[in-house]
Amino acid sequence: MSKLIRFYNGSILTLSRGLSLTDGEVWTDGNLIAYVGPARADAPMFDREIDLRGDLLMPGFKNAHTHSAMTFLRSYADDLPLESWLFDRVFPLEARLTPEHIYTFTKLAIMEYLSGGITASFDMYYHPDAYAQANIDCGFRTVICCAIGASNPDWKSAERGYTYFNSLNPLISYRLGCHAEYTASEALLKYLSELSHEFKAPVWAHNAETAAETEGCIARHGMTPTQLFESLGLFDHGGGGYHCVWLSEADMDIFIRRGLWAVTCPASNAKLASGIAPLCRMLARGVNLAVGTDGPASNNALDMFREMYLACVLQKLDQKDAAACPAGALLTAATAGGARAMGLDDCDVIAPGKQADLIVVDMSRPNMQPIHNIPNNLVYSGSKDNIRMTMVAGRILYENGEFFIGEDPERILAQAAKMTMELISHDT
Amino acid sequence: MSKLIRFYNGSILTLSRGLSLTDGEVWTDGNLIAYVGPARADAPMFDREIDLRGDLLMPGFKNAHTHSAMTFLRSYADDLPLESWLFDRVFPLEARLTPEHIYTFTKLAIMEYLSGGITASFDMYYHPDAYAQANIDCGFRTVICCAIGASNPDWKSAERGYTYFNSLNPLISYRLGCHAEYTASEALLKYLSELSHEFKAPVWAHNAETAAETEGCIARHGMTPTQLFESLGLFDHGGGGYHCVWLSEADMDIFIRRGLWAVTCPASNAKLASGIAPLCRMLARGVNLAVGTDGPASNNALDMFREMYLACVLQKLDQKDAAACPAGALLTAATAGGARAMGLDDCDVIAPGKQADLIVVDMSRPNMQPIHNIPNNLVYSGSKDNIRMTMVAGRILYENGEFFIGEDPERILAQAAKMTMELISHDT
Repeated sequence: MSKLIRFYNGSILTLSRGLSLTDGEVWTDGNLIAYVGPARADAPMFDREIDLRGDLLMPGFKNAHTHSAMTFLRSYADDLPLESWLFDRVFPLEARLTPEHIYTFTKLAIMEYLSGGITASFDMYYHPDAYAQANIDCGFRTVICCAIGASNPDWKSAERGYTYFNSLNPLISYRLGCHAEYTASEALLKYLSELSHEFKAPVWAHNAETAAETEGCIARHGMTPTQLFESLGLFDHGGGGYHCVWLSEADMDIFIRRGLWAVTCPASNAKLASGIAPLCRMLARGVNLAVGTDGPASNNALDMFREMYLACVLQKLDQKDAAACPAGALLTAATAGGARAMGLDDCDVIAPGKQADLIVVDMSRPNMQPIHNIPNNLVYSGSKDNIRMTMVAGRILYENGEFFIGEDPERILAQAAKMTMELISHDT
Repeated sequence: MSKLIRFYNGSILTLSRGLSLTDGEVWTDGNLIAYVGPARADAPMFDREIDLRGDLLMPGFKNAHTHSAMTFLRSYADDLPLESWLFDRVFPLEARLTPEHIYTFTKLAIMEYLSGGITASFDMYYHPDAYAQANIDCGFRTVICCAIGASNPDWKSAERGYTYFNSLNPLISYRLGCHAEYTASEALLKYLSELSHEFKAPVWAHNAETAAETEGCIARHGMTPTQLFESLGLFDHGGGGYHCVWLSEADMDIFIRRGLWAVTCPASNAKLASGIAPLCRMLARGVNLAVGTDGPASNNALDMFREMYLACVLQKLDQKDAAACPAGALLTAATAGGARAMGLDDCDVIAPGKQADLIVVDMSRPNMQPIHNIPNNLVYSGSKDNIRMTMVAGRILYENGEFFIGEDPERILAQAAKMTMELISHDT
């Protein structure tokens, strides 16, 4: 029998009508939202009634680009040039990762997601079976992006991944993709295009993360990564790109025509000095926008509050205009935008029949007071310590600082620490 | 009788020997640190023993530039050009502020400071008596900076403030200063210089926050604000500048020669599109550096984690170099640096005889795990939700999410909300 939960006595940001707030109640029934509206005399018996006490109920954040299991590399190699960071520190350790590592390091990331109000991730990394299992065991929702390319030469894994993971579990889905143009042969891209047409499926990849990557692609192919993918039919069924820092106007033409999604990762792009994505231009032109943290090795946090804030203020700096990039656009991109980018259209807003992927934001913490404008509070002063509850598919996985993910959190931390030490002890 | 508290079973970042960590214990006796070292058989009877459980004990963050009571303007006027923000939204409301407003809005800021591990602030705003009282009543430490200038023409308040507030209460001190060059007449600056020589006291002001301010000063005086202040003898006894975004090499010469402090406020400078301060250059040349949040109207949070993070990654973007501005420099600036800038030399590090202004950082939260490098964790993935305890002058004012500041926090929030609504209802 499914569980009935009632949320009442707070503000609701449904995202189904822009950023307007509404009063009233939300009921969840099992994994779904059952009712949104005023209190009713004919309310059913609830299994639990949650008094919001004036707090905010809203859809959870969607982390639309990440490499979750890279938690083990957090603060391991900071303040290094991009090349030495990647080749000297990251790649040698990644080469030794086993499915067991991925399982535990992913659980650590899921804890961080939940503590920051994130209810779904769009992940690209190694050992997708172990990765999917960690998500299933925690009750967390994820979209796996195929990561074939230089470090994963098993092209066939894309076809198997698509059919297998898309029917494995309601919490798991799978998208076609490759790591990036610069790690993919033209033969691989053509194979991916064929698969995309066979499945009528969107295609994703890292795209224009750095100037060097984009210039390299132009040198190799006479085209940007976006133009190359388009020319090979990879975007015939949609998709998008991670990062999109160096997207050109011609690239944006393609993004708009194909309805592609740009996933901005401002913290990672800043820390690795990759640049500032042209978000104002994208928003003005109507490019679909989502937000991601990228992996914890380059961020180093998995915190959508930080990403929204940073995206806005970097635009203001870049445009030399304090009015540039209003907060609301990024709040939408980080929630409903991300859901739609990831193909999670049933997780985008609070409405009957949608998935109950919800968070409660504590508005009584000092950084949220007084309240002039809740969306602006979320973007400009909000922080992870405002997350009172995180619910995925109707299950409360995090509440008042505690995790309910089927395994003792202390055990996960201890296991992750032990595995990390073992990996690193081989590195010296 | 003073209270004896023992911290044990964790890591200690004393900051007395760089960023090295130490094990062992810290004992506080009343407002002072009494002992730092290994566990001892001859330990006294403690009033309280705090098991750090592997967490980190360190000096609190020092917010070296703020306008605390501007909490009432949080999210009130975001995403506006600087001029309309200031003249159309901020100034009209400020003109109606009473001491009662300042008292309550300051308490709201103090709650936010404590929840983010901040143990002292360097504040410049209106009604310093009410402001000081709010700090005293909460048990919070603050340095008041004189704010004479265009909107406060009472020059004599500087002299009275200096003598009165510097002997009022151990938690309160006072520094000479004026709002900024562009709101001060040359006569005012000369008066301030005389006072500075009379008291042998450092002088502070907003300095080179915007390009327009700096260019305007050059147009008016043929000199930058730093050069003007130096030429008038205002820096003969030290001091510093808030913001310092547009500091020139010649300005840095003066900063170095006089041992002045530059207080960087990266979040405010980003949100108002003022620019990126040349921190790499300052650090390379040896300019003394501290960190501030600026007021919540322009930030909008009072969060030193955000400031440290932003300072580092903005340098990487600005320098196009992921290796620029390593985390440690900002961690030092945000703690010991700030203390020394503010004249709180007895609050800079953990050592016997120093003030017990300490915080406990929860290292068991997922964003801090696994642990490769604690200083980097603090700067790149740390957040307010890692603050387990904040102690000022030996008194625990915040612990496990709860405030111990002599007044019911809910009452402060309600009062601040009510006062804010009243102020704003006159604005429309």
